[in-house]
Order: sequence, then structure tokens, then C-alpha cells
Amino acid sequence: MSELQLKGKQGKEASYFLGNVTSEQKQQALYKMAAALLSQQEAILKANKLDVEKAVQKGTSKAMLDRLSLNEERIHGMANGLRQVAALSDPVGEVLSMAKRPNGLQIGQQRVPIGVIGIIYEARPNVTCDAAGLCLKAGNAVILRGGSEAFYSNQAIVSVLSQAAASAGLPEHSVQLIEDTSRETALELMKLNEYIDVLIPRGGAGLIEAVVKNATVPVIETGTGNCHIYVDEEYDGDMAANIVINAKTSRPAVCNSAEKLIIHERAAHEFLPIIVQALREKDVEVRGDERALTIVPDLVPAGDEDWKKEYLDFIMAVKIVDDIDEAISHINVHSSHHSEAIVTTNYAHAQRFLQRVNSAAVYVNASTRFTDGEEFGFGAEIGISTQKLHARGPMGLKELTTLKYIIYGDGQIR
Amino acid sequence: MSELQLKGKQGKEASYFLGNVTSEQKQQALYKMAAALLSQQEAILKANKLDVEKAVQKGTSKAMLDRLSLNEERIHGMANGLRQVAALSDPVGEVLSMAKRPNGLQIGQQRVPIGVIGIIYEARPNVTCDAAGLCLKAGNAVILRGGSEAFYSNQAIVSVLSQAAASAGLPEHSVQLIEDTSRETALELMKLNEYIDVLIPRGGAGLIEAVVKNATVPVIETGTGNCHIYVDEEYDGDMAANIVINAKTSRPAVCNSAEKLIIHERAAHEFLPIIVQALREKDVEVRGDERALTIVPDLVPAGDEDWKKEYLDFIMAVKIVDDIDEAISHINVHSSHHSEAIVTTNYAHAQRFLQRVNSAAVYVNASTRFTDGEEFGFGAEIGISTQKLHARGPMGLKELTTLKYIIYGDGQIR
Repeated sequence: MSELQLKGKQGKEASYFLGNVTSEQKQQALYKMAAALLSQQEAILKANKLDVEKAVQKGTSKAMLDRLSLNEERIHGMANGLRQVAALSDPVGEVLSMAKRPNGLQIGQQRVPIGVIGIIYEARPNVTCDAAGLCLKAGNAVILRGGSEAFYSNQAIVSVLSQAAASAGLPEHSVQLIEDTSRETALELMKLNEYIDVLIPRGGAGLIEAVVKNATVPVIETGTGNCHIYVDEEYDGDMAANIVINAKTSRPAVCNSAEKLIIHERAAHEFLPIIVQALREKDVEVRGDERALTIVPDLVPAGDEDWKKEYLDFIMAVKIVDDIDEAISHINVHSSHHSEAIVTTNYAHAQRFLQRVNSAAVYVNASTRFTDGEEFGFGAEIGISTQKLHARGPMGLKELTTLKYIIYGDGQIR
Repeated sequence: MSELQLKGKQGKEASYFLGNVTSEQKQQALYKMAAALLSQQEAILKANKLDVEKAVQKGTSKAMLDRLSLNEERIHGMANGLRQVAALSDPVGEVLSMAKRPNGLQIGQQRVPIGVIGIIYEARPNVTCDAAGLCLKAGNAVILRGGSEAFYSNQAIVSVLSQAAASAGLPEHSVQLIEDTSRETALELMKLNEYIDVLIPRGGAGLIEAVVKNATVPVIETGTGNCHIYVDEEYDGDMAANIVINAKTSRPAVCNSAEKLIIHERAAHEFLPIIVQALREKDVEVRGDERALTIVPDLVPAGDEDWKKEYLDFIMAVKIVDDIDEAISHINVHSSHHSEAIVTTNYAHAQRFLQRVNSAAVYVNASTRFTDGEEFGFGAEIGISTQKLHARGPMGLKELTTLKYIIYGDGQIR
């Protein structure tokens, strides 16, 4: 039996048990996991050092090294994250819309764990802890497949977490790590339908595409964000500038930052020069379509390839449109369907944008940066879904559960 | 551009339009479609005759010929189905749980169409009409790929439906049929991620397996039903017999019929001989495990391969267990996770079964035959999902929609 088959089977068995533990038991386990991270932080930091040294030898970039490195503060952050998840209310067991049918059957839907959740992710070791905590809280077993760069760190973290879970009476295979980080094993994981109920990839566009293309297990696609802000012909200039600057520059490397600015032609002559100056003051490279260049000639010309691109950088491309419908159809065609915003003072335009833009989160007069589990009030998130089935937008604990019908009868036959 | 690429593109464009038509428009279109089926039934019956003649020449079985054949009554049935769907309330537009966040943002979820739904199905031409009606009512464009056996019938039905939809002001490509019924085209459809938002296979286990294995488009798995009835140690004998007979014999060829009977050993000595006789009176072949054979020696011995099998026939296999937990774990391992029922008078056992059995519909003291969109009060169904993501159990109009977050702000930045 391969490592994957074995861990899949163990995970499935653990999930049967986890589906029936009380909220209190899960909460205790999460608190114990947080305490164990702190009490065993030395071992984790030692393991992390091995990963970092290996990465330095390989000439890894500074940004990547920073994502990989752990320190006391980051381990405290991980422990705090687990405690926050422990304190959230348990979604499992909730019964929705139970009602009596004419024949006397009482039919309702009950929220239950999904079962075994697979997570495929890249370098950041804190994902190991965050994902384990959320999956467990929702009553799921989790099988983690991190990148080879963080191998020793992930191994140390999972060892600490699974021992702590076991000490709280949960199955020791509730949290498991795939130790073989080869591409072949990742592909095998994507086809492990017998044991894995859902696979969530967390990482760059390349990883997500590989999972969508190869998986036979159901996948929840997360993350790429080519987000747009549309400044309407009727707009408040200060609000528009604030929102654009915040959405572009407050954290350009995350998926909910804005990449594209669309401006109504009647607003462009006034607003474009102002916003270009403000963006440049924040070191943003502004690119423009032909019409934008006629207003601010020294913009970098935007090419066709710009419109679908997620920069994750201090770059923003501007397009000028004739009307709101051109903006909406440009967005619907080029967006990654993550988050889009309109800035307008016109009631009908606000409603039209909300109704017609086909993305996970559609805003009126607010920054796209709010698309986030904590900002939406979920307490934590496992990722942001950009697909339409099951979960769309930030995914919290509820999105890590499913529903089953429960039916109370007294002898009904059909 | 291939037929599929073209139809995919046209479907996508139609879906943008359909997402914004009023309920009234959709309702009018469905009534016109129903009327057109009746006024053009001659053309449909003529086309169906071609399919039936071809099938007869190929030596198709009587049962298959019956599924393929249309007549006036069946066309009336299809038209009535469309009228019923027309009369259902429109799920699109509903806003769920809108609430104000501490920063003043109002965040809610709005029900919207999925977009373009692909349906792959086998011989029955009435699926063409049912699926088109439901998808359209929920604001989706639909691309149908029926089997080659029903080619002329499907072509005639789709031609009538799409003309009627167009005459009601909906896009003519709202309902499209893939005319190339080759396997290659089916595979291409399963990978048409650019245009198809979700694929729903309707048919036998082989078709569903092929779709799950090959599709890169998100799939909703429907249908196989290896359903169980567990008769507990404390039980009402008449109720148990009624439920078993109903669940097995009222319509054995459908997925919610029961295939397995599990009996507590303390009930078996009394109940097994009674139920075997009753089942045999209905021409059911009863198979049994070793322990069942010690009680009723002339049962057909059940082999290992029986326990996962969906007979869809007048066959039922019986297993005797030591206690309710053995019944539950047998079900969780061998079931197709469709529908299961316990017959018991014991409160704690009823609750334990409901909580621990991991299937789409779990019953206490009722027949599994109720797992059905109409019986659940949805008015109609597009299939019964046996997967855990997005939809589980009977899928009605609501399951043909998705949610998006809509957010009202007044200048919030983060």
C-alpha cells in the first residue's frame, strides 16, 4: 500500500470518528494544539532552520525566504489562530428548514462535516497549521501536501499538532502530512477519489491550474484575483481616489487587491490625471489603453495581454469606456471573477453593476480589499473560492461542511 | 471553430442575457415552449419514429425501446412538466442573510444563475425537455448532449423548444443540442471549462464514472442508489414489512428503491421468514449472508460482490448484524450514499442512525422511495446528487443556482 493509500484510508477512518465528536472535544483539542505549538516551538524552529538553510543554498529569493521563515512571533501567530478558530461556533449539527410534508414526513437538512479534505499548497508553513485547525473544527480529517521547500517545517508542525489532537482524544490520523513531495504523488492525491472528499489548492495560478486539470476528486478552486474598480460618470472624486489607492496599494501581493481601473469617459478627463499622480506617488506603474494615453500621454501603453493579468505588484492598467455596460461586459469577459467594485453616486448604476457583474464579490463604493473571511465576519478563512459550485467568495467553517437530508417518519410508504 | 466551441460560446452569450431577464419573461417562455410541443407534436413523433425504427433494426431490447418511444400522452406529459416548472417560484434574485458589519458595510449573498449547464444523458428523450425547462427557469443556458439512439427525437424537441424560447424574447441559443454524438465530442464537452460552468450526467453508472474520470469542468454526480433498510432489534413488524416491500417493489428500476435489507439478529428469527415470504410473493429473489441462510436455508447465498451492487431489479440481499453500529458501519462502507432507512421504535437508535449514517437522505420509519424532488416539495428535479459538494440529494431549481456576495458601502477602505 502506498503512503497515499495508507494515509487516505487512515484519514477516512479518522473522519468517521470526527463526525461524531462534540464541539467541546474539538475545542479542547484546538486549545491543546495551540499550547503544543508554543511548548514545542524550539523543535519547530530547528526544523524550519533546515528548510531555510537549504533554500539559501539554492539561491532562493528574499521574498520567498521571508514566506518560508518562522520565528517566535510567527509561531505565536499560528497558536493564536488556532485559539480563534477554537472559539468560533461549531457549524456541525445545525438543522436548516425542517418542515412537515403533506404526508406527515418531517424533512430537514443537517449540516455535517465533508469528511476528508486534501490541501495542496506551496511554501508557507503557517498554512499547515491554519488549514488543520479549520478542517478539524468543522469535523473533517485533513491530509496536507505542502511543498518540498517547507518539508522539515511541515513535518515538525504536523507532528506537534497530531500528537496534541490525540492527547485530547481525537484520532491521531485527524491531521496527516504527505511526506513524499514528488509531483507523481501530488497527481496521485488528485485522483484519490476513494478517500478524499474534496481537494483545495492554495497557491499560485500554476498550481491551481494543475489541480483543476488533473484532479478527479472534486476541487474548490481558490484565489486568482484580477479585480476591477469602475469609476462611473457620476462619482465622488475623493471617495474614488481613496478606494483606488487603497485597493491597489494597501497590499498589492494579495488576491483581493485591484489590478484594473475602468473609468467612464465623462469622468476620465478630470479623474485620470489626479489618480495617475496619486498612484505614482505610491510607486505604482500606471498602464493605459489608447484613450487613456490621449489624456495622460506618458502612461505605459497597455497591451491585450494586460487585461486578463493578475499583477500582484505595484502595477495598474486603466481602460476608458463609453458607458457602464461597456465596463460590465469588459469585466465579465476579462475578470477572474473574484472581486469588483463600482464607485458611483447614481442609484440605478449601482444596482445595475451589482446585478450584472458576475463575480464572487461585487461592491458599491468600497474597496475590493474587504473580500476576506475575517472582514466578512467568518472569524477565519481557508481560502477564497472563485468557482461557482458549493462555495463562492471567502470560505469559512460553514464552507467546510456539507448538508444531508434527515427525515422523520412514522411508517410512510409511497 | 468546432461545433462544441461554437455552441459553448453561443451558450455563454445567451447566459449573460438570461441572467437578467425577469421571472415573468421566463415564465412566458416556458408556457410557449409547452404550447409549441403540443402544436408541433406531429413533427416530434415523426422524428421519434426514425429513432425507434433504427433501434428496432439494431435489435434493441423491449425495455430500451419503451424508454425511447414517444407518443401523444408522453408529449402531453412533457408539456405539463414545463407548465409545472413555469409555475414554480423563481429562485433567482433572493438575498440571503444581508447584515451590517461593524465598519458599516452591508454584506449579503444573492442567488444568481450558474451560467451554462451541460447535461450528458442517455436514451430518454423526455430528459431533453425536463432539463431544458429547469435550467431555463433558473436563468441558465443549457447545452444538451443526448445519446445517438434518440438523435432525431432530441433534434426535433430542441428545435421546437429553442424556437419557442426565441419567440418569447429569450436568446435562441438558450437551449442547444450537440448534434455530434461521438465519444470524442463527449470528452471535449467534459473539458470545455471556458464555456461550461457545470456538467450534470444523467444515466447509468458507466456514464457517470466516465464523466467523473474525464471531466475538468465541475461535475455534479447523480444517481446510483445502493439503498439500505435496517430493521432494528426493537421494531414494529407491520411497519417494517410495509416499508421493505414498498422500498423494494414499488419501482425497482429507480435509484431510490432499496437493494439491501439489514436485520438485527434479535429481530431476524421472527422477521426474516415473514419478509422473505412477502418478498417472494412479489417475485423478489432474496439473497442472504451466512447467518440469514441459517434461518431461511433456501435463500440464494449472497457473495461479497453483492454488498456494493445496485440491482435495479427484483433482487434484495439480506445481512444479519449484531447491533446497530455494525449496521451503520456496513452501510457507510458499502452504500452509494444515496438513501438509507432505519425501522425502529427505540428513540436513541433512531437518533444514532440519523447522525451516523453518511448518506444524502437518512430516514427513520419511512420508505427510501421518498428521495425525490417532487416528494421533497421542490416541484421538479434535475437529478439526485450523491456527492457532497454544492448539492446533495434531490436537486431542484435552487440547486441550479449559485450565490454571489453583494456589498453596499459608502466609501469604506481597509
